[in-house]
Amino acid sequence: MSEYIAPVRDMQFVLKELAGLEQVAQLPGCEEATPDLVDAVLEEAARFAEEVLSPLNWPGDQEGARWHDKTVTMPAGFKEAYRLFAESGWTALGSEPEWGGQGLPKVVAAAVGEMWKSANHSFSLCPLLTSGAIEALVLSGSEELKRTYVEKMVSGVWTGTMNLTEPNAGSDLAAVRTRAEPQDDGSYRICGQKIFITYGEHDLAENIVHLVLARTPTAPEGVKGISLFIVPKFMVNADGSLGARNDAYCVSIEHKLGIHASPTAIMAFGDHAGAVGHLVGEENRGLEYMFIMMNAARFGVGLEGVAACERAYQRARDYARDRIQCTDIGVRGGPKVPIIRHPDVRRMLMTMKSRAEATRALAYVVAAAHDAAVHHPDAGERKRNQAFVDLMIPVVKGWSTESGVSMASIGVQVHGGMGYVEETGAAQHLRDAQISTIYEGTTGIQANDLIGRKMAREGGATLQAVIGLMRGVAGELGARSGDDFAALQRRFSAAIDALAAAGEWLVANYGKDVRAASAGAVPFLMLLGVVAGGWQMARAALVAQTKIDAGDADPFYPAKIGTARFYADHVLSQASGLASSVTDGAAGVLALPEDMF
Amino acid sequence: MSEYIAPVRDMQFVLKELAGLEQVAQLPGCEEATPDLVDAVLEEAARFAEEVLSPLNWPGDQEGARWHDKTVTMPAGFKEAYRLFAESGWTALGSEPEWGGQGLPKVVAAAVGEMWKSANHSFSLCPLLTSGAIEALVLSGSEELKRTYVEKMVSGVWTGTMNLTEPNAGSDLAAVRTRAEPQDDGSYRICGQKIFITYGEHDLAENIVHLVLARTPTAPEGVKGISLFIVPKFMVNADGSLGARNDAYCVSIEHKLGIHASPTAIMAFGDHAGAVGHLVGEENRGLEYMFIMMNAARFGVGLEGVAACERAYQRARDYARDRIQCTDIGVRGGPKVPIIRHPDVRRMLMTMKSRAEATRALAYVVAAAHDAAVHHPDAGERKRNQAFVDLMIPVVKGWSTESGVSMASIGVQVHGGMGYVEETGAAQHLRDAQISTIYEGTTGIQANDLIGRKMAREGGATLQAVIGLMRGVAGELGARSGDDFAALQRRFSAAIDALAAAGEWLVANYGKDVRAASAGAVPFLMLLGVVAGGWQMARAALVAQTKIDAGDADPFYPAKIGTARFYADHVLSQASGLASSVTDGAAGVLALPEDMF
Repeated sequence: MSEYIAPVRDMQFVLKELAGLEQVAQLPGCEEATPDLVDAVLEEAARFAEEVLSPLNWPGDQEGARWHDKTVTMPAGFKEAYRLFAESGWTALGSEPEWGGQGLPKVVAAAVGEMWKSANHSFSLCPLLTSGAIEALVLSGSEELKRTYVEKMVSGVWTGTMNLTEPNAGSDLAAVRTRAEPQDDGSYRICGQKIFITYGEHDLAENIVHLVLARTPTAPEGVKGISLFIVPKFMVNADGSLGARNDAYCVSIEHKLGIHASPTAIMAFGDHAGAVGHLVGEENRGLEYMFIMMNAARFGVGLEGVAACERAYQRARDYARDRIQCTDIGVRGGPKVPIIRHPDVRRMLMTMKSRAEATRALAYVVAAAHDAAVHHPDAGERKRNQAFVDLMIPVVKGWSTESGVSMASIGVQVHGGMGYVEETGAAQHLRDAQISTIYEGTTGIQANDLIGRKMAREGGATLQAVIGLMRGVAGELGARSGDDFAALQRRFSAAIDALAAAGEWLVANYGKDVRAASAGAVPFLMLLGVVAGGWQMARAALVAQTKIDAGDADPFYPAKIGTARFYADHVLSQASGLASSVTDGAAGVLALPEDMF
Repeated sequence: MSEYIAPVRDMQFVLKELAGLEQVAQLPGCEEATPDLVDAVLEEAARFAEEVLSPLNWPGDQEGARWHDKTVTMPAGFKEAYRLFAESGWTALGSEPEWGGQGLPKVVAAAVGEMWKSANHSFSLCPLLTSGAIEALVLSGSEELKRTYVEKMVSGVWTGTMNLTEPNAGSDLAAVRTRAEPQDDGSYRICGQKIFITYGEHDLAENIVHLVLARTPTAPEGVKGISLFIVPKFMVNADGSLGARNDAYCVSIEHKLGIHASPTAIMAFGDHAGAVGHLVGEENRGLEYMFIMMNAARFGVGLEGVAACERAYQRARDYARDRIQCTDIGVRGGPKVPIIRHPDVRRMLMTMKSRAEATRALAYVVAAAHDAAVHHPDAGERKRNQAFVDLMIPVVKGWSTESGVSMASIGVQVHGGMGYVEETGAAQHLRDAQISTIYEGTTGIQANDLIGRKMAREGGATLQAVIGLMRGVAGELGARSGDDFAALQRRFSAAIDALAAAGEWLVANYGKDVRAASAGAVPFLMLLGVVAGGWQMARAALVAQTKIDAGDADPFYPAKIGTARFYADHVLSQASGLASSVTDGAAGVLALPEDMF
């Protein structure tokens, strides 16, 4: 069985040459992230991912998390792995030193996080949810709540969850009905049922800190009447020790397509005495706080897409190198060769490799912008970077995760019949990857966020700025010689034009005909992903050529140019079709009366 | 749980208006296929699929086929369903009356077969494999073998299998090592292991007729030394009764991603006394006979793709009608609406609906051509139709099944989080659909067959003829008025140009640089599928407009035009990107040395 090997070389290249790690390390508060430290962190994380998490991935899928009498038992090995994970400090990587965190920049945490996700998607969800909960608490909680909870969560002694949706709510949080009754002691009693709660119950840690959306009795209707509460599994005494069991129970877990080792809980709050909860921040501002968690979580889920592309690629590549079948095409009577020599297998592998690299580069660049948006001393720079992050988060989430599914499907295909046999492991990647396109907002929800809140609301200004940067890179491509750069320049320029036209159309039409604009939302998100990925591949090729011109003989560089060339002819070439679906596609989408479906 | 409803209206439309059922019924030997009879057959098949097969689909997936001590127990209900299926004559639908079959044309069998596949993919594989085995026996077997086996297989009393591949062979049948030792009585003793044998063992029928590829002692190396043998599970006495158990045992079944109710057997022949086999046809011509079965089976697997698109579409549509979530986009404070009203959900449903209709139309048109290729009194017409069938079988197989996977994935997405929960049923369609892109030759194998044997070998003549027919339809579109036809005409014409350019490039380069040509094989197969599907959607729109102009008020017709319009702007628009991947894509595919993957 192929085990995961972290792609440290490409990660380092992206961090240093594309995401500007050196500049990030000059931001106030990010000075720890020296090249040496980052290299050491990547090396240690790679070892942990490869040696501890990856070997548990397949057995964890087969055994699954098991529910019995309101408790969940994790698959064999997960508890010990989690203990090691927390003890090694991995839960604390990106958190503030004030709370015991290591305060490393998001761009470094992104590379490390990608490793956890590639090695063991199910396992990685526990720290992902916890860090989202930490972020919401740190930004919105009272000093007392922070003192009580944050340090234990940063150290991984306790884990966190996000309790948003309910059976009749789904993505529509206005429909949340869980109630929160204020008590004389300042606490609340929480009653209601929450569904799809990732790691809502497990045996990895001694306590679970649920962040729960609920309505107080005086709350207005809709999303403006939702408050955020903290509801621990075990109450916490004044000295920090654990007290009584709270009335928050996992009544069952879902039987899912994938991520079998990640328990997806149905949580019942207050079925007995009432669950004790504490208000986080102010009443009726819960959705706002939850969005803090959600944006971080959306980026994290986007990284799952990158990780799925990479993991599926590695397994398919390893199989293609080992599997001997047929002679070279066009050669009769020659020796049988590994299938990696067959052009169509290479095409599939290049599709996967180039997609992993493009989604990775885009995600890390966005993470670096996040660091600048938080830490840059100049307010204008912070604002400019934040606008870029806001624009690109739905793309990192939507495009990378859809890519993860497609690439995992290609990975199955590379294996032929063996890919369909579960023991091979390729099918698990496909089953696991599929969830990433759904949770934390489906691709459709990301796309509507993108064209509405992120583009139409500001008249497309940030997109135009990004397109300006892209055109600069296209100009640089034109100044290089050779077929590869000529092809890259031609495809990338045409793709930018397609993106610009579709973007202008959307901004112009969103206010006039929101249904027609929305009909093109997902094609536009995919278009922006394809072109932004091409932007990063083009930048990578430029850096690689500069290294080659300077006499660097590392074969990584010509391979990067070849991969960018592949991306240009096979992926950027899709841009004009996607743009047509945006600008001309609404008529077909909206043509049929509902009863003719 | 959404149950399957056969799309009889669209099937009838395609049969009558696009596939030319009336002309097929005029072919010698096809006269039974009167409109009334075909309507009655479709109605009865729909009832069987909806009432008997569909309700077993989900429980069959959950229970799965179970192996114990060399026997396989099918899930509850399958045995009774199979008995009813055979008794109702469905196994005999397409077979010759000489052997107890009903002799209905392939185009009618295609529509009926699509129903079985949509209703219960796993179940449908048993008759699919049996009919392939019948076809090979009828065309290649001796009179004695035919008398002994065919009638029982046509009536469904016995079932059939195809035993091709082995652990070290995969798609490379030259590597087959199973041995066949001639005996004094004219029979052979077969020894070897076969893998991936669909319905290699089960409890639905009293006997299983294995068709097995093996080598005689004097056989030459490679594919020219493979013979075909019939190896029954139980020997057959002279009076047709069952005799001793043959030494052909199922030693285990695979644990697969999907089609859990279809047992995928590992078969051991001759582990004990030696399995008794009888030569089919002549020695060393086994591959040729197997290809007879394989071409029929490839078409049948292509129909699985159509069926997956349809089934996934129906489930997603039903959910989208029922699920109430959010207000209409752009409307604040209005009532919550079914999600089918949200533009992006409509976009997903239209993607699925248009793909189901396009793949169906293409498949049935190819089936009708098969009928003409077999039955037409004019030799030129037979030849012309056969060339069309040969060209399009890899497209029906490859494009329809890849569409099935993509559409089933979209179907999961329409359900949001519920789609990821197995109980919903959407995930099963995705798991089941994935196999169709693999067995009977992966998409890559179909594509190499398409560009090599089907195009390059004849200089692209049949493709050019098809492009000529397409251009005729594009001309007709130009003669209609209105936005929909203008858009269809523009997109379809551009797509034909892209197809023609890519096809010419392939034919010109296949002989010069087969690796570069092969690198574009799958993009070309997808391109031909997209454009050929658009061709049929364009023909459908023309018929629909003619009906409307003649005063027909059936809302089916404007819906068909709307669906064709959607297909034009969202699918035909991809043609130029695919063509670029063919003509310019080889450089990127072939750029990297193997160790840089």
